[in-house]
Amino acid sequence: MPKPRIEFWYDFASTYSWLSAIRVEALTRNVDCDIAWRPFLLGPIFKAQGWTTSPFNLYPAKGRYMVRDIARIADARGLVFVMPDPFPANSLTAGRLAIAVGNDHIGDFTRRVYEVQFETGADISQRGTLEPILQAMGLDVTAMIAASETTAVKDTLRNNTAEAQSLGIFGAPTFVTADGELFWGDDRLEQACAWAHKAERA
Amino acid sequence: MPKPRIEFWYDFASTYSWLSAIRVEALTRNVDCDIAWRPFLLGPIFKAQGWTTSPFNLYPAKGRYMVRDIARIADARGLVFVMPDPFPANSLTAGRLAIAVGNDHIGDFTRRVYEVQFETGADISQRGTLEPILQAMGLDVTAMIAASETTAVKDTLRNNTAEAQSLGIFGAPTFVTADGELFWGDDRLEQACAWAHKAERA
Repeated sequence: MPKPRIEFWYDFASTYSWLSAIRVEALTRNVDCDIAWRPFLLGPIFKAQGWTTSPFNLYPAKGRYMVRDIARIADARGLVFVMPDPFPANSLTAGRLAIAVGNDHIGDFTRRVYEVQFETGADISQRGTLEPILQAMGLDVTAMIAASETTAVKDTLRNNTAEAQSLGIFGAPTFVTADGELFWGDDRLEQACAWAHKAERA
Repeated sequence: MPKPRIEFWYDFASTYSWLSAIRVEALTRNVDCDIAWRPFLLGPIFKAQGWTTSPFNLYPAKGRYMVRDIARIADARGLVFVMPDPFPANSLTAGRLAIAVGNDHIGDFTRRVYEVQFETGADISQRGTLEPILQAMGLDVTAMIAASETTAVKDTLRNNTAEAQSLGIFGAPTFVTADGELFWGDDRLEQACAWAHKAERA
């Protein structure tokens, strides 16, 4: 029987996606699921609902709560959360690079980008942040940067974002099961895995 | 040693508050916490951030997701979720009545109002919905309605809403511990209880 597959939709600037990105691979392995890494951009989706920035900036009470909520969860998991400035980071380059590195490396790249951003506060819009990650992974930095600037890669990220919007995704992380169910938030990851198995058996 | 106390802040129109209202008393009893029922109105808080209705109506993708999310959680807990129309209900009368019935009855009243709203779809802005609840509880309906229209009760609900806003509350349910930590959402209730005990020992 094939393993049930969960799509993990994320924007690199999303704090709650950090919490998922660093545990999703171990968790899905434990519960015998496959994972599809689906980077996209929240910006165009926010813009379509009239927002010019993250709701965490538009609604300061919500933003303050998010920082505290993330810090508490991180602490419970033995992590240290460092809020980057500016927030949200421009995640375009990171999103394109995630596609450029290919299926074999996207999980590792994604995790490293989130870690440097939310565990050390680095600005992931900067090449100076992203290039050392490619290098540490043993990838050809120049080739990867060049690939990330091709029309094919740009189109893939744009298409991902359009697909996210058409799926009804409005925030990140969102987990999508094969039968089209959406689960929004790191706190729904376990539920998404259980659902994927249930759908598989149905 | 006194039990740690959790404030349960809720607006009667809130779907996620239903999920908490019907389990918070049993849960807090199990984990040896006290609960303070704190009804308030989200309307003025939404208005202060420029919203004229619930974000679930302003952002349809989010609204559709909420209905599905609630239905899945309800199903897992053996509940049937019925979305009331109109949504959100005007929760002013229910909020005032919750205060009018007093501390001995507020938990029971609150639970019943949520049940009739989200398990049968009743419109809780209507006296025809609320009066049978008072009656079933063995309360003096006329006296309770009269009490709910006094300046003292109106002021208490207004003050609750102002206090919620000053605490940084932006949605419901929100659980607040004695040391001022906020936990937003039914899915944070267990965490709030654990925190309350930790704070008590500190």
